[in-house]
This record gives sequence, structure tokens and C-alpha cells, in this order.
Amino acid sequence: MPTQIEKRTRKATAPTSDTRLSILTAATDEFARKGYAGARTEQIAGAAGGKHTLVFYYFKSKEGLYRAVLLKVFSEWASRVLCALDIEGSPKQRLLAYINSYFDYIAKFWWVPRLVQQEQLRHEGSEGRDLRKLVGPYVDPVHRRLADLLREGMAAGVFRKVDVEHCLHSISALIVFYFARGAAVQSLERGEPEVRAQVTRRRKAVLDFVSAALFTSQSA
Amino acid sequence: MPTQIEKRTRKATAPTSDTRLSILTAATDEFARKGYAGARTEQIAGAAGGKHTLVFYYFKSKEGLYRAVLLKVFSEWASRVLCALDIEGSPKQRLLAYINSYFDYIAKFWWVPRLVQQEQLRHEGSEGRDLRKLVGPYVDPVHRRLADLLREGMAAGVFRKVDVEHCLHSISALIVFYFARGAAVQSLERGEPEVRAQVTRRRKAVLDFVSAALFTSQSA
Repeated sequence: MPTQIEKRTRKATAPTSDTRLSILTAATDEFARKGYAGARTEQIAGAAGGKHTLVFYYFKSKEGLYRAVLLKVFSEWASRVLCALDIEGSPKQRLLAYINSYFDYIAKFWWVPRLVQQEQLRHEGSEGRDLRKLVGPYVDPVHRRLADLLREGMAAGVFRKVDVEHCLHSISALIVFYFARGAAVQSLERGEPEVRAQVTRRRKAVLDFVSAALFTSQSA
Repeated sequence: MPTQIEKRTRKATAPTSDTRLSILTAATDEFARKGYAGARTEQIAGAAGGKHTLVFYYFKSKEGLYRAVLLKVFSEWASRVLCALDIEGSPKQRLLAYINSYFDYIAKFWWVPRLVQQEQLRHEGSEGRDLRKLVGPYVDPVHRRLADLLREGMAAGVFRKVDVEHCLHSISALIVFYFARGAAVQSLERGEPEVRAQVTRRRKAVLDFVSAALFTSQSA
């Protein structure tokens, strides 16, 4: 641990970690809007209120900055939805909590599905290189927990018998696809209140659709 | 109408329309695998067994060829699913026919969702230019018919009361998202039988999920 004096010294000579975070936040926004190829590090530095060279001081390269953005996006998502899956409650309550927490995340980071979609298509003919490294530590644990939850609900008779793997695909599709398809980008032009209204309406529709598709009358 | 003699004369001096179709088919495959930027017209001409200059003879430019591919993809999809929506039958039967015809299409053109997704992300910060021109003539009529079908089923008490616009988003998401996310590309490496098995399994899961989500006990 650095001492207070070391911290103060470092603060005087090097940019603060606030700057790093500002760059990261601005970068997430820029990559989400313009994709990897279209994003400009000058623009990111400007939006973060810092010098252009600071981007390279902290992240070495545009690619390094992009990897940091993806890491931030995936780790925040995983920690939020895992908390929801951890609540005390019936399988039905935990599944609804998962969907709600996902929408809480999207309400704040509604451009993330688009960013992920871009990354998946970025590398010709294969899944995104960087994405593959994030699926193992962040997505797989969430999907394993969800699969267990579906099996638990099916065994208890409160969920219908479904193809577990494809039910996971279906739930993800219902939540994410709408925001990956440019609807969010159109909203951006209309401003934040419109985005919030869209997220609220989509959330309601998905909770209703999944409940009807999955819950048996026993779970009512 | 050209006479037989005129046809023969043209055939002798100009490339046949079979060549145009071969180029278009090869182009669809190349764009689906590599995206717009990654696709190579030399590669397309080679795969079609024609000279590179023929690509420009028929389509003027790479952009022109790409537009022709998108037009082919959208018009074939629309004519197939509209036929399914036109069958004699209950709202339930027509909705299932729509989903089945969509999967019949995907079984043959499983890389199309990925191609469309690529196009949507191709233009920075806005929906694909070319895509917008295709949504009006091809997608909108299908969605209007589907919305009418949902309202008809709700009025008859055989569909649950749902947010019609979002139910359309949900049905599209369930069918398309799985194939837009690289699953199809992974299958490509494993060969055609694997693709067919994936489409069959996804079709079954989606028919089950949508039926449970939408149909009332009255429609059983």
C-alpha cells in the first residue's frame, strides 16, 4: 500500500486515476456509438477533458483502451446479475430478479448490447477475439447459474419443461436484441427520457413474455 | 420480349444471366462471412467461376453488388413469410406457419441474420443506409400483417393480451438473434449437417416458447 505522502507525490507528478476513469467512460461512449474502427482517441481524450497522450499513458494503444472498455462492461454486468441470482426467493422470484437487474443495467448502459454486437462482428468470420476472453470469466458463470435455476424450477414443477440451453438463448435474445438493433441509437437522438421510456416498456414486455412462456400455473 | 434469335445473339456476345446469378450467390456468401469491408470482389468472381471484370459489368461496383445481395435476401424472405401468413387457418396456425417459414428460410440462408446485423452496424451511429431502403418495401408489410394477426388473435381470445409492437420485437429476437451471434459461423466450420441440426433444435425451442408465451388455453 502506498503511504499518504507517496500518494500525494504521485498525484503531483502523474495524472489522477479519476482521469483514467474519465477516459474509460468517454471511450465506452465513443466505441458504443462509432464501433472500433470509427472511434477516435482524440475525441475520447477531448470528451474526458484530458490530453490525447494520456490515453496512451494509461492504455498503451487504442486496442488496449478498447479491451479495458470491454472488461469494464462485462465485469459490471456480471456482478450485477449475479447479485440478483443470489437473492433469497423462489426460482420464479430469482429469474424475475435476474431479468430486472439486466434491465437496470441496460437502463444505465443501453448502448452496451450494441457494443458487444459490434465486437462479435469485428473479426471476420470468427467471434471477437477479445470477447472470447471475457465469456469464460464473466458470461459462463452467469449462464451456469441460470441453467441451474431453470433446472431447479423445472424439478419443482414451477417452470415448464424446456430445452435449458435454448431457453437461455431465448431469454438473452428477448432482453438484448432490441437494444442491439439500433433502436437505442435512434433514441439517443431523442434524448435520455426517451431512452428510459423505451427501456421501461421493453422491460415490461419481456417480463410478461418470459413469465407466460416459462411459469406453470403451479407457480402463480 | 426478345426473340429466340436475339436471345441467342446476346448469349454469344454477352455473359449469361446465369453468370450474374452465380456472382450474386458467391457474393452473398462472401459478404455474410467477411462483412462488407472484408469481402473481396476477386474472391467472389473466383468462387462464381467468372472473370473479375464481370462483377463490374453486372453490378458497377462493390457497393452495387452489395446492394443487389441485400435486395435478393430481403425480397426472398418477404415473399416466403408472406405466403405463410396467407394460408387458410386460425390465427394460431398462421403464426406458427410464419415462424416455420422463417426457419425454412434460415435453414437455407442461415448466414442472413448475421449479414443484416453487419449492415445495421456498418454505418457509424445510424442504421444502415441501404437497409433503410429495404425495410419500407419488404419488412414493414410483413410486420403490418403480423400485427394485424396478433390483434385478430387477441380479439378472438386465442392470444393473450400483449403489447403488439413489442411482441413483434420478441418473436423476431427469438428467431434471429441466435443466428446473428456467431453460432452460425461456428457451425459453418462443422459443416452443413451441424447447421441443419442447430436450425431444427432452435426452431423447436422457439415454436414451444412462443406458443406458451402467446396462446391462451382457449386456443388449445
